[in-house]
Amino acid sequence: MSILHLPGLIDIHVHLRDPGGTHKEDFATGTAAALAGGIVAVLDMPNNTPPVTDADSLHAKLAAAEEKAHCDYGLYLGANESNADTVFRLHAEACGLKMYLDQTYGPLRLAQLSAVMAHFRRWPAHLPIAVHAEGLVLAGAIALAQAHNQRVHLCHVSRAADIALIRAAKERGAPITCEVTPHHLFLTAADAKRLGPLGYMKPTLGTAADRDALWANLDVVDCIATDHAPHTIAEKGGENPPPGVPGLETALPLMLTAVHEGRLSLERLVELMHDNPVRIFGLVPPDSEIEIDTTAQHTISRRGLHTKCGWTPFEGMLVWGQVRKVALRGKLACRDGDILIPPGFGQPLRRTA
Amino acid sequence: MSILHLPGLIDIHVHLRDPGGTHKEDFATGTAAALAGGIVAVLDMPNNTPPVTDADSLHAKLAAAEEKAHCDYGLYLGANESNADTVFRLHAEACGLKMYLDQTYGPLRLAQLSAVMAHFRRWPAHLPIAVHAEGLVLAGAIALAQAHNQRVHLCHVSRAADIALIRAAKERGAPITCEVTPHHLFLTAADAKRLGPLGYMKPTLGTAADRDALWANLDVVDCIATDHAPHTIAEKGGENPPPGVPGLETALPLMLTAVHEGRLSLERLVELMHDNPVRIFGLVPPDSEIEIDTTAQHTISRRGLHTKCGWTPFEGMLVWGQVRKVALRGKLACRDGDILIPPGFGQPLRRTA
Repeated sequence: MSILHLPGLIDIHVHLRDPGGTHKEDFATGTAAALAGGIVAVLDMPNNTPPVTDADSLHAKLAAAEEKAHCDYGLYLGANESNADTVFRLHAEACGLKMYLDQTYGPLRLAQLSAVMAHFRRWPAHLPIAVHAEGLVLAGAIALAQAHNQRVHLCHVSRAADIALIRAAKERGAPITCEVTPHHLFLTAADAKRLGPLGYMKPTLGTAADRDALWANLDVVDCIATDHAPHTIAEKGGENPPPGVPGLETALPLMLTAVHEGRLSLERLVELMHDNPVRIFGLVPPDSEIEIDTTAQHTISRRGLHTKCGWTPFEGMLVWGQVRKVALRGKLACRDGDILIPPGFGQPLRRTA
Repeated sequence: MSILHLPGLIDIHVHLRDPGGTHKEDFATGTAAALAGGIVAVLDMPNNTPPVTDADSLHAKLAAAEEKAHCDYGLYLGANESNADTVFRLHAEACGLKMYLDQTYGPLRLAQLSAVMAHFRRWPAHLPIAVHAEGLVLAGAIALAQAHNQRVHLCHVSRAADIALIRAAKERGAPITCEVTPHHLFLTAADAKRLGPLGYMKPTLGTAADRDALWANLDVVDCIATDHAPHTIAEKGGENPPPGVPGLETALPLMLTAVHEGRLSLERLVELMHDNPVRIFGLVPPDSEIEIDTTAQHTISRRGLHTKCGWTPFEGMLVWGQVRKVALRGKLACRDGDILIPPGFGQPLRRTA
């Protein structure tokens, strides 16, 4: 047995479905899943029902998190076509602004450049705007970052061309950062075919060449984020299955397996899953530590998952590394998957700026 | 009567429909329309049937132009999803590469960032890539220009947000140029409603605020180009009217009217319709001169038009300035609308680089 101690991880991209989708996840189950996966803080996306686009919806969601969350959290605000003149006033209470520039799950979508630019003019330039943007639209987000000298964080980059453009733009000083998900690093379109709706998310799974390009360009990736986006098996089996897969409980074992296989160093893993999230979002990370048995192998299974949706697209994969203990603010928060702290223990993340 | 002499104008964006659409225009009628409008050289777009994407289609189109053109011409090559590794080899025989990044008329469309980037990697960086791109996709084209340090020319800019972004990107040194059409400067969505399909083109006519923003930002516009895109009245009256309007014979009178009204100087007009086209495309302009009666007013009418389509969206507008004479390479090429030189007099434009 080889024991490893790391700081508690920070996942900058989750959808805990609270409010509006609490039949498939809520702040209690979602943050329990986080802790079981070695993650002590999550940044939650605003595409709820109703979407988080104003003070009322933000404060209602903060109250739900305060009541239920086991681990720490920050909340994104959502940009829409009509709130550019108001939403920026709430920046101190949020972790960032999220823009959906491509079609995705939920009611938020910005199609008009005029509306996008209105947000860029108002949002504080040093705080990140996180964007869902693919292909040419991702290129557009980079141009906006450069033209406005606005920090832009590119979510769930998934394609070879996208990461190549990010590399070129970073080399020319564009104020951008980016994240990659474990599912785009470990699964491909071949898996999507095998998994059916359980392998469907936005962006969709890429080709093996896309996956390989993400690994080959991991040096320009800033964060690993799960894009944890649970849906029930029933929803996934319906006529129009919604996009999204859970990921909080599988991200660290998958990435530790990559470390085991020599695909990245442990130091780099900590940068991607702790240091860079802290830096990019200007967070005060909670005092925390996780203990991992790096020599333990296990097969990923839906059994024992804390996520309410109760399934994983990584079912059956053999991985290295098991989270034994998670300490958060001096408390043993999780031991061998058992959550030992109550709902409401989680606190809103503080920011340095 | 006040007589003005200017160099013959250069229109960098026309669709003369030859081959594939010669029932609505061809090199003879289109270049006659050009001369009647004071334009002595045109750059013709590649969305023909078949599209101009390889040596065979380019050479066939060059042969048609050589046989029929009254005025000088350059031809664009078209980028598609599969010719990035070959089309760049033809750059010396073309005036530029055209990319359709948004849906428009004809079979050429590039939807994949990977294909777009493949062209950016191969096309000579100092020669322009002309793009049809609107909104967020226009922003994407700007990012690609910056990331690849590739000269990009943005066609028919039509919206307030688009020109605002172009201004911001130019101020930060992006290697981009842009053009605006007379129809976007003189018509709005209100005219589109009045004109029906005869006021339909891509990009569509904008709001009055969009039109006003183009005038207010004319200092960051590099060229006035017509996007002359004729269709027959019958096609325009059909179930799915195709986008596009003619413009070769009306551009100069409209812009002279703007000069008359003090909206731009005559020097600026010459920059926009001659000097900058020469500079951006590295052209050797033909020896030419046009003679204009600036005090002559006339009402734009379909009567006497040389374009085969036989109509104009500017019908009924009162404009200042009438082209009296056009001299090209020492020959009187056009007098009071009469074309005095034969088809085949036109020559391919030479480039300096």
